[in-house]
Amino acid sequence: MAAKRRKPRRKAGLPPGSLVYLGAPQVDKVEMSLVHYTKSKYRRKKLTSLTDAFSQISDDSVTWINVHGLHNTEILMEIGRLFKIDPLVLEDILNVGHRPKVEVMANFIHVIMKAVLGEKDGELIRSQLSLIVGKNYVISFEEFPKELFTPIYDRLKNPEGRLRENGADYLAYAIMDVVVDNYFPILTGLSEEIEDLDEIVLNNPEPEQLQRIFTLKKQLINIRKNIAPVREVIVKLLRSESPLLNSSNAKYFNDLQDHVIQLVENAEVYREMAVSLQEIYLTSLSNKMNEVMKVLSIIATIFIPLSFLAGIFGMNFDTSASPYNMPELSSPYGYIIFWMICLLICGGLIIFFRRKKWF
Amino acid sequence: MAAKRRKPRRKAGLPPGSLVYLGAPQVDKVEMSLVHYTKSKYRRKKLTSLTDAFSQISDDSVTWINVHGLHNTEILMEIGRLFKIDPLVLEDILNVGHRPKVEVMANFIHVIMKAVLGEKDGELIRSQLSLIVGKNYVISFEEFPKELFTPIYDRLKNPEGRLRENGADYLAYAIMDVVVDNYFPILTGLSEEIEDLDEIVLNNPEPEQLQRIFTLKKQLINIRKNIAPVREVIVKLLRSESPLLNSSNAKYFNDLQDHVIQLVENAEVYREMAVSLQEIYLTSLSNKMNEVMKVLSIIATIFIPLSFLAGIFGMNFDTSASPYNMPELSSPYGYIIFWMICLLICGGLIIFFRRKKWF
Amino acid sequence: MAAKRRKPRRKAGLPPGSLVYLGAPQVDKVEMSLVHYTKSKYRRKKLTSLTDAFSQISDDSVTWINVHGLHNTEILMEIGRLFKIDPLVLEDILNVGHRPKVEVMANFIHVIMKAVLGEKDGELIRSQLSLIVGKNYVISFEEFPKELFTPIYDRLKNPEGRLRENGADYLAYAIMDVVVDNYFPILTGLSEEIEDLDEIVLNNPEPEQLQRIFTLKKQLINIRKNIAPVREVIVKLLRSESPLLNSSNAKYFNDLQDHVIQLVENAEVYREMAVSLQEIYLTSLSNKMNEVMKVLSIIATIFIPLSFLAGIFGMNFDTSASPYNMPELSSPYGYIIFWMICLLICGGLIIFFRRKKWF
Amino acid sequence: MAAKRRKPRRKAGLPPGSLVYLGAPQVDKVEMSLVHYTKSKYRRKKLTSLTDAFSQISDDSVTWINVHGLHNTEILMEIGRLFKIDPLVLEDILNVGHRPKVEVMANFIHVIMKAVLGEKDGELIRSQLSLIVGKNYVISFEEFPKELFTPIYDRLKNPEGRLRENGADYLAYAIMDVVVDNYFPILTGLSEEIEDLDEIVLNNPEPEQLQRIFTLKKQLINIRKNIAPVREVIVKLLRSESPLLNSSNAKYFNDLQDHVIQLVENAEVYREMAVSLQEIYLTSLSNKMNEVMKVLSIIATIFIPLSFLAGIFGMNFDTSASPYNMPELSSPYGYIIFWMICLLICGGLIIFFRRKKWF
Amino acid sequence: MAAKRRKPRRKAGLPPGSLVYLGAPQVDKVEMSLVHYTKSKYRRKKLTSLTDAFSQISDDSVTWINVHGLHNTEILMEIGRLFKIDPLVLEDILNVGHRPKVEVMANFIHVIMKAVLGEKDGELIRSQLSLIVGKNYVISFEEFPKELFTPIYDRLKNPEGRLRENGADYLAYAIMDVVVDNYFPILTGLSEEIEDLDEIVLNNPEPEQLQRIFTLKKQLINIRKNIAPVREVIVKLLRSESPLLNSSNAKYFNDLQDHVIQLVENAEVYREMAVSLQEIYLTSLSNKMNEVMKVLSIIATIFIPLSFLAGIFGMNFDTSASPYNMPELSSPYGYIIFWMICLLICGGLIIFFRRKKWF
Repeated sequence: MAAKRRKPRRKAGLPPGSLVYLGAPQVDKVEMSLVHYTKSKYRRKKLTSLTDAFSQISDDSVTWINVHGLHNTEILMEIGRLFKIDPLVLEDILNVGHRPKVEVMANFIHVIMKAVLGEKDGELIRSQLSLIVGKNYVISFEEFPKELFTPIYDRLKNPEGRLRENGADYLAYAIMDVVVDNYFPILTGLSEEIEDLDEIVLNNPEPEQLQRIFTLKKQLINIRKNIAPVREVIVKLLRSESPLLNSSNAKYFNDLQDHVIQLVENAEVYREMAVSLQEIYLTSLSNKMNEVMKVLSIIATIFIPLSFLAGIFGMNFDTSASPYNMPELSSPYGYIIFWMICLLICGGLIIFFRRKKWF
Repeated sequence: MAAKRRKPRRKAGLPPGSLVYLGAPQVDKVEMSLVHYTKSKYRRKKLTSLTDAFSQISDDSVTWINVHGLHNTEILMEIGRLFKIDPLVLEDILNVGHRPKVEVMANFIHVIMKAVLGEKDGELIRSQLSLIVGKNYVISFEEFPKELFTPIYDRLKNPEGRLRENGADYLAYAIMDVVVDNYFPILTGLSEEIEDLDEIVLNNPEPEQLQRIFTLKKQLINIRKNIAPVREVIVKLLRSESPLLNSSNAKYFNDLQDHVIQLVENAEVYREMAVSLQEIYLTSLSNKMNEVMKVLSIIATIFIPLSFLAGIFGMNFDTSASPYNMPELSSPYGYIIFWMICLLICGGLIIFFRRKKWF
Repeated sequence: MAAKRRKPRRKAGLPPGSLVYLGAPQVDKVEMSLVHYTKSKYRRKKLTSLTDAFSQISDDSVTWINVHGLHNTEILMEIGRLFKIDPLVLEDILNVGHRPKVEVMANFIHVIMKAVLGEKDGELIRSQLSLIVGKNYVISFEEFPKELFTPIYDRLKNPEGRLRENGADYLAYAIMDVVVDNYFPILTGLSEEIEDLDEIVLNNPEPEQLQRIFTLKKQLINIRKNIAPVREVIVKLLRSESPLLNSSNAKYFNDLQDHVIQLVENAEVYREMAVSLQEIYLTSLSNKMNEVMKVLSIIATIFIPLSFLAGIFGMNFDTSASPYNMPELSSPYGYIIFWMICLLICGGLIIFFRRKKWF
Repeated sequence: MAAKRRKPRRKAGLPPGSLVYLGAPQVDKVEMSLVHYTKSKYRRKKLTSLTDAFSQISDDSVTWINVHGLHNTEILMEIGRLFKIDPLVLEDILNVGHRPKVEVMANFIHVIMKAVLGEKDGELIRSQLSLIVGKNYVISFEEFPKELFTPIYDRLKNPEGRLRENGADYLAYAIMDVVVDNYFPILTGLSEEIEDLDEIVLNNPEPEQLQRIFTLKKQLINIRKNIAPVREVIVKLLRSESPLLNSSNAKYFNDLQDHVIQLVENAEVYREMAVSLQEIYLTSLSNKMNEVMKVLSIIATIFIPLSFLAGIFGMNFDTSASPYNMPELSSPYGYIIFWMICLLICGGLIIFFRRKKWF
Repeated sequence: MAAKRRKPRRKAGLPPGSLVYLGAPQVDKVEMSLVHYTKSKYRRKKLTSLTDAFSQISDDSVTWINVHGLHNTEILMEIGRLFKIDPLVLEDILNVGHRPKVEVMANFIHVIMKAVLGEKDGELIRSQLSLIVGKNYVISFEEFPKELFTPIYDRLKNPEGRLRENGADYLAYAIMDVVVDNYFPILTGLSEEIEDLDEIVLNNPEPEQLQRIFTLKKQLINIRKNIAPVREVIVKLLRSESPLLNSSNAKYFNDLQDHVIQLVENAEVYREMAVSLQEIYLTSLSNKMNEVMKVLSIIATIFIPLSFLAGIFGMNFDTSASPYNMPELSSPYGYIIFWMICLLICGGLIIFFRRKKWF
């Protein structure tokens, strides 16, 4: 149970800028891959030596180093040394509880985003993605090495594609676009669940549904928390006027911005629906209870007076002691009259209940 | 069930700018119509060749190409080629889950809006409308080819009308005005339903009403979501100072802005009322339950002690075994006294209930 | 029922600027009155010819034309023609569902406000008031010709009053001031009702109160909706720096602004109290139900076991068949012991209920 | 009841600027006091002639006229005449329903604030305080002449104090500081009540507590409403750059600002707690009801079947008519078996209830 | 009880700037420690003479005076005299109810923050921390002298650390960083409690949990209240462009800002979850009640009619008086038929309950 949790913990007491990985290792071994391409060439391979990769960076090609997994701090320190990256930035890369942000430095841009990979045991599987975008290179750090980037690899293979024609900033955009787009199916899945629950909750409220609604709300809050800051990230990127970003690519970031706004708005709308659902649940329960109470009340209200009547004629007053003692019992029509009174009471109450619209 | 749903799905993995229609085809065949007018002439016909239409565009006339249906991507690509429209814009036109927005380009203005055509099975029928407004032409893309534009066609026939005297920007305004105005009857219908439900819910809460309130709320949220961004759209249009917009037409857009604000405010007020209605429902249910409980309690509280009394005198203690064993039974007035005690208990409880204001 | 409703309907399909009155006629016949005054003279009469009134406008006097009722569009068109008023403005005057707004034109200022005249059948009686403020004249359009302007007529009679010393802009201010001030008694009335309901709801919740609270909330929302935009109206007026407004009168508009802010804040506070009241109602109902349940439970819990006991001794086991069969019945103290057990159970339960603080 | 209420009423129909006192007289007779001081001298006396006071104002001393009570409009008019104060300002001083505001004039600054003096019958006792701050004088108008200013008088007696060293603007600050500081004990009192109610409500919800919570919420809303606008007042004061305010005293107003923000934040936090308390109350009530229902259900569920059993053996079927008619009754162990069945049912149900965690 | 409370009390009536400690003394004796370091040297000792410490301040070293405890106002006054600190600042240091703020003076910067040290009896232990940051010195005032600063002392011992290389502003940053970081474990603890409560509340709602949820909400509100203003503090610091702050250290404050935003967002998310939890509690209780009611209703609905039936055959009508009087009793199959009717009723009701999905 405790092992499953991923909370933003800070290493209280350590100096700022210390490199300590704060999450649980999500992969067995930290691996790296290298993608190197120009308009005419494309190569992708497993990376073993960072120095090799560093030496390949040139003005007329794009180099993309993708680090899978974060718990090998030595790799990080070497990257920091080679690419002259501030220790505070490296610390942020390791802090998987960090919120999305961007920092525009002189020689590179640092972006932190959260990818959502799916759902497990009612918790979203979040993977922190950090990007170091330099002049001719991109370094990406993935917490969980899932197949998030497969579509980018596929598109890179196409020599006519926009990716091959553009520089490192467009690659960074493509990576961010894939991360943002990955939220859509997750959100759609949640919204479909909400709509499915809608009818069930109204007709047959069960505690498990309540649990599910609570989980849905929590996930929607989490999605909003992870995606909403990306708006500021893009705004800051566009305003930075960094020479690392080609101004002709601004339209792509604007488009990405639109998608993020749409995600945030949808998450908010779905959350309002989940809240509605919870209220529906409670009201539905009251409906049920009302019905249960009505059945009980109808039965009890009809039979309690009848039982009293039957009780009376079951009394053992000595009829011989006095003519006032239960003369009904020896009347020849007593029993028939008893039943007629019963029917009268019954009928009267049924009319009363009908008027009150109880059934 | 699943086929009915229209969710904003993104084609994860495809490069940005790919032309793929994401909605379900809402018409059998994509058709186009051409409207061509000057102050003195007006012609409207079914369009078959886009190249023909393109060649007719001239400085002293207005050309309006209306595309009904979106699932023919070839038409879109030809339009893109003829009118030099960026693939990102074409992609947005096809993405029916897009939120309202405007993009002011050098050679044209691109507007996306959502028309609301009615309600079906508790869901609003939304139709995405995209406009490409150029110097002398307007291209409109309708997801659902309903009779939304009929009033515009009618007004165009009138040679004295403002439409015939103004350029393409005024035509774009007229189209946007029709879309916005179409929200008013929908909203009025919803508000009337809310007011009708108001009284019913208070007197006779039924689960179907709850379902209806939930649907109303969802629709009002959706209306707000679809119309609210149009405010920014108009603000952005007015601030763009695009040469494609005649500044003397700004007052019309300001007027449109007023209508949008009014729609948003009304939608918000109605939503607050729907929320109130839901609370009324719950409280009404509690009222009902309270009443049911009171009836049950009154009956039970009166008859349970009486039944006990009747039970006592039904006991078979051997009166002959001892004079202490139920001497009441052989008393000549036992039965009469029993009834008097019953009446006393009954009367006392009725006074008690009256004091407690139970009935 | 349907006739009573006043909803903002838009004439979908008509060209913008068409003059169609959208409300129900609130007066039998549209009438006009003319007020003409200088520092030294004051005249008020029923107006029949607009051309006459128009010819009287002069630089050293103020002319006030007040139109009572809106359903005579011919009058409006003549005014439009005489005073050169844009059709869009005339359209807004007729659209009684319009929100408060101001438009500063070159030759006049157009203000729309909502007067609240009282309450009828739980709905606020709103009357739309439009002002056309020119250099030396004011034209006012009242939807309902109530005595709203009587205090202004009275003040105009006083030759020493500020009204007589100032121009048309001060008259416009005075009219707006009367409209705003008219909200105060309405709001005070609503707040007094809320305070009266407060105590009643707590002690004796009844469904009619709930209905009333719902109505109060709706009215407060409506008041806020009608008065809040007046803030922007005044801000826009003050910022317009129109030559039609004498800058020395700005302090009066600032003062008016203060009153509007106070109204909005009060409406908001009262609405919060109405929401509180609704919650109080629900909680009060739960209190009542709790009490009902306690009474039922106490009675049932005491008498159900006792009834069982009485039932036992009413059983007909054959005591002669075996000495184990109900020897109590023939015991000489059986009946007395039965009563003692009854008293013990009764007493024990009473102590139990006391401990649980049930009474 | 009606007399107790103080509502912001506007004198509808009167011209703006008419001097009419709108509140109930809070003191028998309007009195005035005069404080006159320089660095070296300090004098305080009852004031009878305003002209005298006016003549004493000089460049090297500070004159403070404090008016206790507002219902003497003649005094106000004389002040207006002597100090050249606009009738609109005088009107605002009399309107005790006015919200806090500041007006920076050429020759004086006008500040309206609300002092809170305590609580009476669940309503806050508010006293409107108006300040006219001129070059060498301060005129203060108090609605209720309580001992609010005693600490200022005490501090003025000290010739070494800052008050004696600074001018009229510092005196105004000191007065405003006393008014703001007076909110703290009131707020602390309310917050202590909320914390005391916290535990009581959870264990033993009673309708009186609900009433009290409602009152607390109302008071907190009122406090926020009265103190929050003081923020804008101070901001406006600081931005006015009026020559009447010594810029070296800005730090004191900044400090005051901090206190106001703290008050507003605390009021908001306490209000959230009061809302929580109300929810706790409702939930607590449900807890109670649940317990009541459980007791009833346990008793009823155990004894209703047992009573049925006892009822069966009380039936009078003729055992002699057939051997199938109630052979149990004549069985020698019938009664013992009856009790064993009773114990079995009872035990079984107790186990069932335990499993359901009902007790 | 009363002694435990720490409320922001203001010394009403005292002149602003009076030095009075308003909290309860949190330590026995106010102690001071002195830290003095350069790049090459580091010394830490208990401080007895402030004059000594003051004389050691030099341009090429950093002096840090830490005051533990606040109730010795003489120390404060001496510091004020030595370091030329405004009495208003000293007053703020003593006012432990103050909200976080920053004041940038000519010769020093004054920062107030709130450290959270843990939780005791459901209340957060808050310690006010004030910093006076001068050119070569930092004076810190701690309300509670806990081991908050131990990690800073440890890091100062390392001659290679950043702390030793930077000036007083970096030391101030390090102190603020430790205070902010201390919130993370507290917040994580609260969030873990919320998640633990989540499941328990759903399955087995108990009043103690409600109490706990209420406490959690209160603590989260308090955390937000204490940490949120730190955002403005840092923004103000960065904008002040004070020469006391080295601009190359801005990135550290930006980083701190990020942590504060993350804290505020997390606190908000956890509070939303606590609110959800409270709703879950209430709904869970309704679920329980519904179940209780169903059991009661099933038992009562089945046995009440059966008891009535048994009651009938227990009546003593005289069968000999007439053949119509209870002929069933003497029928040979009467008893068997009775049981068959009982089984029929029982079975019918069970089918009815199944259909209603009651079990």
